[in-house]
Amino acid sequence: MSNAPSEPITAALLIIGDEILSGRTRDKNIGTVAGFCGVMGIALREVRVVTDEMDAIIRAVNALRAENTYLFTTGGIGPTHDDITADAVSRAFGVELPINDEARKILEDRYGTVDVSPERLRMARIPVGASLINNSVSGAPGFILGNVHVMAGVPKIMEAMLEDLATRLKGGAKMLSRSVDCAVGESTIAAGLGAIQEEFPQLKLGSYPQMGRQPIFTQLVIRGTDETAVEAATARVRALVDEMHEAKNIKLSKDQV
Amino acid sequence: MSNAPSEPITAALLIIGDEILSGRTRDKNIGTVAGFCGVMGIALREVRVVTDEMDAIIRAVNALRAENTYLFTTGGIGPTHDDITADAVSRAFGVELPINDEARKILEDRYGTVDVSPERLRMARIPVGASLINNSVSGAPGFILGNVHVMAGVPKIMEAMLEDLATRLKGGAKMLSRSVDCAVGESTIAAGLGAIQEEFPQLKLGSYPQMGRQPIFTQLVIRGTDETAVEAATARVRALVDEMHEAKNIKLSKDQV
Repeated sequence: MSNAPSEPITAALLIIGDEILSGRTRDKNIGTVAGFCGVMGIALREVRVVTDEMDAIIRAVNALRAENTYLFTTGGIGPTHDDITADAVSRAFGVELPINDEARKILEDRYGTVDVSPERLRMARIPVGASLINNSVSGAPGFILGNVHVMAGVPKIMEAMLEDLATRLKGGAKMLSRSVDCAVGESTIAAGLGAIQEEFPQLKLGSYPQMGRQPIFTQLVIRGTDETAVEAATARVRALVDEMHEAKNIKLSKDQV
Repeated sequence: MSNAPSEPITAALLIIGDEILSGRTRDKNIGTVAGFCGVMGIALREVRVVTDEMDAIIRAVNALRAENTYLFTTGGIGPTHDDITADAVSRAFGVELPINDEARKILEDRYGTVDVSPERLRMARIPVGASLINNSVSGAPGFILGNVHVMAGVPKIMEAMLEDLATRLKGGAKMLSRSVDCAVGESTIAAGLGAIQEEFPQLKLGSYPQMGRQPIFTQLVIRGTDETAVEAATARVRALVDEMHEAKNIKLSKDQV
């Protein structure tokens, strides 16, 4: 067990969706993608939500794909006029967007040749050079172009697409997370916690006040990929909390911890 | 009632929060801010979630404040080492970050002079030139610097801060929204809807398949600030839907619409 850092695998998520920005729909995809990345050992470093506008999408795609190992996008790949994600991604890469035979066949197999209208066929337009992402829910595929993974916005369909991606992405060192509850406020623990953070620069220590809990409660979280360091820092945080509790004569019952 | 566009008032939201990106906490603030902007007549144009890292925050603050009438930030203004939003915003503006007398007094009034520890006093550091945002829940204020509005990440506290902002921000033309349900799929309605969109470039028409509903259901949404246009386009969409339903011999019962 060494402290040598391996190349971190990072990701960004781009949500294309006026319906989130207007408040009409509550986002469910950030939490799902964050959880997926955690399991895969991928560090999710940024999320952006942008409007269904060509320039806004292209700018965000180009910024985020340059900065991360992977870019995931959700939304805007349906059959209607406001579904322009495939157009935006192909423009961002400077490639054509023809009807893809494999995608057309998937739609024809599902809907029958007759019912694949010109509008439905819009969903078979795939940038040149992309490979398809399987959509077990409603057929119309997503696609991977370079490091950009284009998925549907409907949560159930996006989850199905992530299933397909799980076996196709390179994961990284698993992020480990430990938490320690303490019955003092953030301000009280801040100095001690800050000192431990300085000792372990390769980890991230966070503190989260638990509103509405009585007595006052703060959850301390220790995160990192280096197991030895995570365990050592967690022991230090536990000792700090014990010391604080002793000073204040606090005993936590089992169900509080 | 004219079609003359007034200067749109736009906003971006920057969420500073490792806990969202790690999947540990599910975001609740996007929906709240989106709803707030809707009521205020402010167009929310972008949301970003970034890690608790100085450079990432400064870059996002500078990009988003330049592009929008308002920038709202949430998170990172507590008392611990990972609360660096005030530092990042003051650096983004190139101003100092001293203890603010008014903020210190608020903390002393709430916690007593003795209990305002150096860590708690961290929350009284306010960039030079900023005005305070009232926090009726837990005291420690947010602040406004230029067009940047810095709020807490805890949803209850953020909501309280928005209450204070509601009377201090300039609102815009109210965004109007109408929806029309139809019992055909997105692909079937796409061509007709696209034609209406072309006729009303000042509006935004969206279509949202309702998964799991039987028979198949799509919600069509017409949005814009120009009431005459919104009503005219909605009438056109209704006529289109009626036509589709008639062709397919569909009658919607009252409770379906």
